[in-house]
Amino acid sequence: MQTILILGAGKSSTYLIDFLADSCANSERKLIVADLDLALAKSKLKTRINCQAEQLDSSDLSKRRNLIASSDVVISMLPAFMHPDVARDCLELGKHFFSASYESEEMRQMKSDIEAKGLFFLNECGLDPGIDHMSAMKIIHAAKAKGETILTFKSYCGGLLAPESEDNPWKYKFTWNPRNVVLAGQGTSRYIEKGDLKYVPYHQLFKRLDTISFLGLGDFDGYPNRDSLSYRQVYGLDNIPTMIRGTLRRAGFCKAWDVFIQLGMTDDSFQMEMPEKTTLRQFLNAFLPFHEELTIEEKLTDLIQDLDFPTFEKIQWLGFFENRLLPKTKGTPAQLLQAILEKDWELQPEDRDMIVMQHLFEIEAENEVKKITSSLVTFGQDSVYTAMAKTVGLPLAIAVDLFLKKEIRLTGLHVPVLPEIYEPILSELEKSGIQFEEKVQIE
Amino acid sequence: MQTILILGAGKSSTYLIDFLADSCANSERKLIVADLDLALAKSKLKTRINCQAEQLDSSDLSKRRNLIASSDVVISMLPAFMHPDVARDCLELGKHFFSASYESEEMRQMKSDIEAKGLFFLNECGLDPGIDHMSAMKIIHAAKAKGETILTFKSYCGGLLAPESEDNPWKYKFTWNPRNVVLAGQGTSRYIEKGDLKYVPYHQLFKRLDTISFLGLGDFDGYPNRDSLSYRQVYGLDNIPTMIRGTLRRAGFCKAWDVFIQLGMTDDSFQMEMPEKTTLRQFLNAFLPFHEELTIEEKLTDLIQDLDFPTFEKIQWLGFFENRLLPKTKGTPAQLLQAILEKDWELQPEDRDMIVMQHLFEIEAENEVKKITSSLVTFGQDSVYTAMAKTVGLPLAIAVDLFLKKEIRLTGLHVPVLPEIYEPILSELEKSGIQFEEKVQIE
Repeated sequence: MQTILILGAGKSSTYLIDFLADSCANSERKLIVADLDLALAKSKLKTRINCQAEQLDSSDLSKRRNLIASSDVVISMLPAFMHPDVARDCLELGKHFFSASYESEEMRQMKSDIEAKGLFFLNECGLDPGIDHMSAMKIIHAAKAKGETILTFKSYCGGLLAPESEDNPWKYKFTWNPRNVVLAGQGTSRYIEKGDLKYVPYHQLFKRLDTISFLGLGDFDGYPNRDSLSYRQVYGLDNIPTMIRGTLRRAGFCKAWDVFIQLGMTDDSFQMEMPEKTTLRQFLNAFLPFHEELTIEEKLTDLIQDLDFPTFEKIQWLGFFENRLLPKTKGTPAQLLQAILEKDWELQPEDRDMIVMQHLFEIEAENEVKKITSSLVTFGQDSVYTAMAKTVGLPLAIAVDLFLKKEIRLTGLHVPVLPEIYEPILSELEKSGIQFEEKVQIE
Repeated sequence: MQTILILGAGKSSTYLIDFLADSCANSERKLIVADLDLALAKSKLKTRINCQAEQLDSSDLSKRRNLIASSDVVISMLPAFMHPDVARDCLELGKHFFSASYESEEMRQMKSDIEAKGLFFLNECGLDPGIDHMSAMKIIHAAKAKGETILTFKSYCGGLLAPESEDNPWKYKFTWNPRNVVLAGQGTSRYIEKGDLKYVPYHQLFKRLDTISFLGLGDFDGYPNRDSLSYRQVYGLDNIPTMIRGTLRRAGFCKAWDVFIQLGMTDDSFQMEMPEKTTLRQFLNAFLPFHEELTIEEKLTDLIQDLDFPTFEKIQWLGFFENRLLPKTKGTPAQLLQAILEKDWELQPEDRDMIVMQHLFEIEAENEVKKITSSLVTFGQDSVYTAMAKTVGLPLAIAVDLFLKKEIRLTGLHVPVLPEIYEPILSELEKSGIQFEEKVQIE
C-alpha cells in the first residue's frame, strides 16, 4: 500500500485530487487530503474508496509531521513560503516531495541530503513553472539533437478569462491568488536580448511590453518575469543571446494596471490608516498632487502620460471616480487595492477561465533560421473546474502517479527538464486535452 | 573634570571638535576624540591642551565601552545605524548621549530607562534635523503665544554649492555621505496639503517639486522628505492642514536625477555583475529597452518623458554617452552609479559649499493671514571647513557645552523643540553667523 498525502485542498487542488483519488480505486494506493477546512477536503474526495480527509492547521507541526510520517509521497499545495518546512520534514522522515512552486534557495540547500537519502524531490511541476519547462525542453532537446543553435527563446504564460467571460473592461478576473496578482512584478526584472543584459525596474515593467497573438483569440500584452536569466542554465542555454520569460494579460490591461503602479497604489511597504468613510475617489486623491482648481480626473490625466480612453474607462469601471466606500481602510496600499479588486474581479460561478502559453523560438539550422511558435490554449469548465486548476494540478498528479508506478526512476532534487520526467507527463497531458500547437516558419 | 567623548572624527566633526577642544582650555574639561584613523583624530585636535586622540575600530566593543566608561558625555558621529548600540552602552554606564541623527524607534524604546536613570539623551541636534527644528519651533511658539493658528508650514533644506563652485551642469558636488545622496527619497514620502494626506512613491518623488527662492541666489527644487507627518506631533501641530518637510537641490537637478530613478539605476536591491571592461554607455544601455535600429540617445529620449536639453546635458556631462569605463562593475546599480558620481562630483579643495534652509509659514492672526518666510544661507570656507560641517557640528557642540555648564537642565530623551534647548543654542549660533532672515507679508 502506497500512501499519498496532499497538503491543501484549495482551488488549485481540484484536478490534482480528482486524478489521484481516482487512481486509488484500482491499485494498492491510498490518498490522504489534509486541509484546515475538513468539509472542503471531504467534498473534493467525494465517496471514493481508499481516500481519507483530515483536518489540519498547517501550523500544527506535530499533526503535520504525523501525517507526513504515515505517507510515502507528499504533495505540498500550501502557500509557497511553507514548502521548505514541509520539505525538511520529508527529508527527515524519508518521504518524497512534490510541489508546483519555484525551487527556492532553501530547497537547494537540501540537495545533497536529498540525494544521500535516495529521495525524489520535484518542484516547479505545475503550469508556470511546470508545463512551460516541459514543453520548452522538448523543443530545445530536439533542436540540440539535430545540432541546431537556439538564438531566441521567449516564453509567455497567462491565466485569463475565456472570451465569453471577458465581461469587464479589464477582461480580467481573479483565477489565482489575488495578492500575487496585485504584487506581480515588484522588484527588478532581468532578461537578455541580442546579447544585452536588460534590467527593468518595477515602475517601467508594465510599459516594457511584447505583443503576443493567438490564433482566433487576438492580442495579448506580455511583460517580463522577474528572473529570466537563471533559466539559461536550467535549460542548458547558457550562451543564448535572447531569453525572456513573461506573463500575459489581455491587450490594454498592462497600460491600465501601470496607472496603479505609477500612483504608488500597489506599494506593500507601509501602512495607511484612512478614515473609516473614505471613498475610492478620496483614496485615489491621496496619490495625486494637490491642486487648488483641478478635479481628480484632471490631476490624474496630468500625472499619467498618455492616459487614453480605454485606460480611463478601466479605472472608472472599478469606481475610482465615485463616492463608493473603500471596502478596507487600514493596511498597505496594495492590501486596500486588493480589497477593491476582490469585489469587482471575482470569478462568477458560470465564468470560464483560460490558460494561454506561447513559446517563440528562433533556431539556427544548417542554411536557415527557423521560427517556431508553440502555443497552448486551454479553457476551464466553470469557476471550480478551472483551466488554472487543471494545468497546475494535472502535471503534478501525473508526476506522482508515474513516480509511484516506477515509470519515473530518479532520485535527488529536480525540476521537470529531463526527458525521463517531461516525456511521459506531456503525453499524459495530451490525453486530457492539454496540447501545444506548433507552427514552423523558415526564413 | 568633565570628560567629553566624540566618536568619529570625519568630515562633519571638524567644527564640533574645534568648538569643544577650544572649550577645554579654560575650564575643567577634557576631550577625547576616537576614530579608526588615529592620525585624523590627532590632526583635528592639533596641540590643544586637555585633548586626547584615540584609535578606535567601532566594532571593537570592549575598547568602545572602556572609552564610554571613562567619559561623562558621549557624542556619536558614527554612521546612524550604530547610534542605538552606543546609546545602549551609555544607558548602561550612566552617560549622557548626543547625536545629530534622527531619533530611531530603538532609541524611543530606551525612553523610560533614560528618564529613570536621570540621563539626558539629545538626538536630531545638527542641521536637518536640528537647526530646522529649533528655528521653526521659535516661530511656532511665538505664534501660539499670540493665540494665532498655523495653517501652513513648509520647511526645506539643502546642502549645496556656493554659486562660484557650481562649475558643472548639475550644480552639485558631494558635501555629505554620497550613498545617502544616491539613495535619497527611496520608499514612499508622506505629507499633508490643505487637509489631504498625500503619498508619493519614489518614482514620482522627483517630479513632485516645489520652487523655493532665496534672495540673490535664485531658484531651487524642493522635493518632499520621506516623513513629514510624524513631525506634526513633535511640533505640536497635530491639526495643521498643510505640512511638508523637504530637500533642496538647484533648479533642474531633480529632473535630471529622475532620469536615473526612471531607469532603475538607483536600485539598491540586487547585485549586478557587469563584464570588467563595461563602459558607462553600456551600463546605461542595460536599463534601456532593446531596439534594432535606435541609438542609446534615441532610446533614452523615447523612454524619458520630456527629456529636455538641460537634462540631457547633465547625463552627458557624467560621460554616459561615452566609452568611458565603469569605475566599479560589481554591486547594486546604486553602488555602480555612486562610483561614477564620486569621481565627477568630488568637492575640490578650493570649493565652497552652501547650506540653504527656508521655512514658509501661513499663520492666521486676528483679521489677517501672515506669510512668514524665514531663510538661512551659510557658506563654507573651503572643502574642510564646510558649511555642512559647521551647521551639523556647531549645534551639537553648543548643546553639549550648555549642558555641561548646566544651562540646559533636562533629563530624558529629547529632540531640540523645547525653548530651554533651542533658545540658547540659536543665540550661540548667531554669534557664528548662522542666522535666519525673516520676511513677513500680510494678506
